[in-house]
Amino acid sequence: MKIQGQNYRTVWMEGDKIFTIDQLSLPANFKIATLNTIEDVENAISSMVVRGAPAIGAMGAYGLAQAILQLSELDRDLIDLARVRLEATRPTAYDLTHALDVMDRAVRDAASLEEAQLIATQTATDYANRSAEACQLIGVYGATIVPDNASILTHCNAGALATVDYGTALAVVRAAHDQGKNIHLFIDETRPRLQGAYLTAWEMVQEGIPHTLIADNAAGHFLQHGEIDIVITGADRVASNGDAANKIGTYEKAVLAREHNIPFYIAAPFSTIDFDCPTGAHIPIEERDPLEVLELAGTRIAPEGTQARNPAFDVTPARFITGIITERGIFKPDQLEQ
Amino acid sequence: MKIQGQNYRTVWMEGDKIFTIDQLSLPANFKIATLNTIEDVENAISSMVVRGAPAIGAMGAYGLAQAILQLSELDRDLIDLARVRLEATRPTAYDLTHALDVMDRAVRDAASLEEAQLIATQTATDYANRSAEACQLIGVYGATIVPDNASILTHCNAGALATVDYGTALAVVRAAHDQGKNIHLFIDETRPRLQGAYLTAWEMVQEGIPHTLIADNAAGHFLQHGEIDIVITGADRVASNGDAANKIGTYEKAVLAREHNIPFYIAAPFSTIDFDCPTGAHIPIEERDPLEVLELAGTRIAPEGTQARNPAFDVTPARFITGIITERGIFKPDQLEQ
Repeated sequence: MKIQGQNYRTVWMEGDKIFTIDQLSLPANFKIATLNTIEDVENAISSMVVRGAPAIGAMGAYGLAQAILQLSELDRDLIDLARVRLEATRPTAYDLTHALDVMDRAVRDAASLEEAQLIATQTATDYANRSAEACQLIGVYGATIVPDNASILTHCNAGALATVDYGTALAVVRAAHDQGKNIHLFIDETRPRLQGAYLTAWEMVQEGIPHTLIADNAAGHFLQHGEIDIVITGADRVASNGDAANKIGTYEKAVLAREHNIPFYIAAPFSTIDFDCPTGAHIPIEERDPLEVLELAGTRIAPEGTQARNPAFDVTPARFITGIITERGIFKPDQLEQ
Repeated sequence: MKIQGQNYRTVWMEGDKIFTIDQLSLPANFKIATLNTIEDVENAISSMVVRGAPAIGAMGAYGLAQAILQLSELDRDLIDLARVRLEATRPTAYDLTHALDVMDRAVRDAASLEEAQLIATQTATDYANRSAEACQLIGVYGATIVPDNASILTHCNAGALATVDYGTALAVVRAAHDQGKNIHLFIDETRPRLQGAYLTAWEMVQEGIPHTLIADNAAGHFLQHGEIDIVITGADRVASNGDAANKIGTYEKAVLAREHNIPFYIAAPFSTIDFDCPTGAHIPIEERDPLEVLELAGTRIAPEGTQARNPAFDVTPARFITGIITERGIFKPDQLEQ
């Protein structure tokens, strides 16, 4: 992605250092965080310095590579422990499990520490590259369903910042825009953490793509008034039956889209599809700190004595999903095949 | 309503001074604002020191009474001008028009300034009293549809603070609670102005009614998981066909309630029903300052270069409304009669 005219990825590694755009500082400040240890990586994922399922996946791959690079001997138990620690940082994003599986399989038969380190570095780098390419292809396939003059609604940030590069839902928006289509993006601000306002709007400003920020509550009104032609979001985990977990509020928009006969698409790479998970009911839903609801930008918004609940994701049943845009093409949710 | 153990109304008049709870200071500070002139009243309504359709109606009645009390001669044109100024403060709340009509008719035939002033004071006082009584009755009728152990979802603040006293949706909640029913209130925080977090949660804390604050995005998730039994909101204007305008986001919750076969009720006094308005399409929808979306509690949340749109209300078509809870009983939306 272009930031202030320069090309960036969301996450990358040099030697045993991992670098990532610090998403907690956006949109006010653009900063790169350096992660030197597995504790740094754990904190970066759980505090959401890095977030978005494909970006978390790449971070997991780099994190395990870093842990292996920092070993003093080839100790299988220490590698397993690092994997367990990394996988525990966020429960819903399937890409993390997927990436750690890929790493695990690759280093399993290494005969020496040097061989394990070489394989780990190469595998993590390949993983990130393939993840970026997958997102680029999501853009190519997805742009075919975006007509000229389309008004698109998105929720949360399924942008370059949520992936290694390009984004998922926003890869589609970028590709359509780059093809010269006159498109306009409505962005849900996405409470409680405001990733729409903080991150998606910032990406659109960087790329000069026309956009309008709205309160999450307003999406139904604009759908009702015919101002939205397509809804596209990302996903944190897709079950094998096509049910999709994504940022809390996605389900509301999917129900509203169907009410107005507006197509609702999920854009996600195959690394987000959990073929071992039969339905959305089996996807673990993270409940985050109630303070994310009780406070806003560090200011308490609720009176003392008020409690909150804060599910971070919801599940959109497959029947509400028009199609899943992947790097292999667009699938009906009931036609996913490994 | 009880506040710190004392009884209060949201708005009242003594002599030619109008007093109102300053809703912009809540929940952090409980303050009473004194309104000495029509400019004070205009500002109090448009800046939302006082908000909520029935409360705005009573404020309009008191505001016109104040203007008449401050006349030095009986000048019909000055009374008309005051009415026009007050009515222009907020476009969607029908109670304002209703209250000003009541005042207008009462003072029209006054033969002297003294008579006009006497009638104006008495009429405004009666209006506020009747408005409070209507809300109390809304609670009585509404409680009949709340079973024991019910979990209720509400949006925005349709509480005592939105009325002269008791509330509309929250009158139902209060009455059910006072009858000893074990109820729990889910409160949408209600972006962009957070009336759910700021005001509804505060009222529930004052009354000791169990409640949980949620992001607007989470209502669908809790409906999907069977955690909500009834949805009740207020209204800013009900058309004669039963379509109801209310705080932005109400329409989203109504669509979701129907998706889950959960009853969706509007609670509103007859003063909110505009029988001259045939359908929701004829209700003027206020668009407020985009800064309400771009900022939060005074802090900018969107990057520079991002625009926002900020419709303050949406219209829920009658077909989504199970019933309208009024001071005369509960009506199907297509059975409203003047």
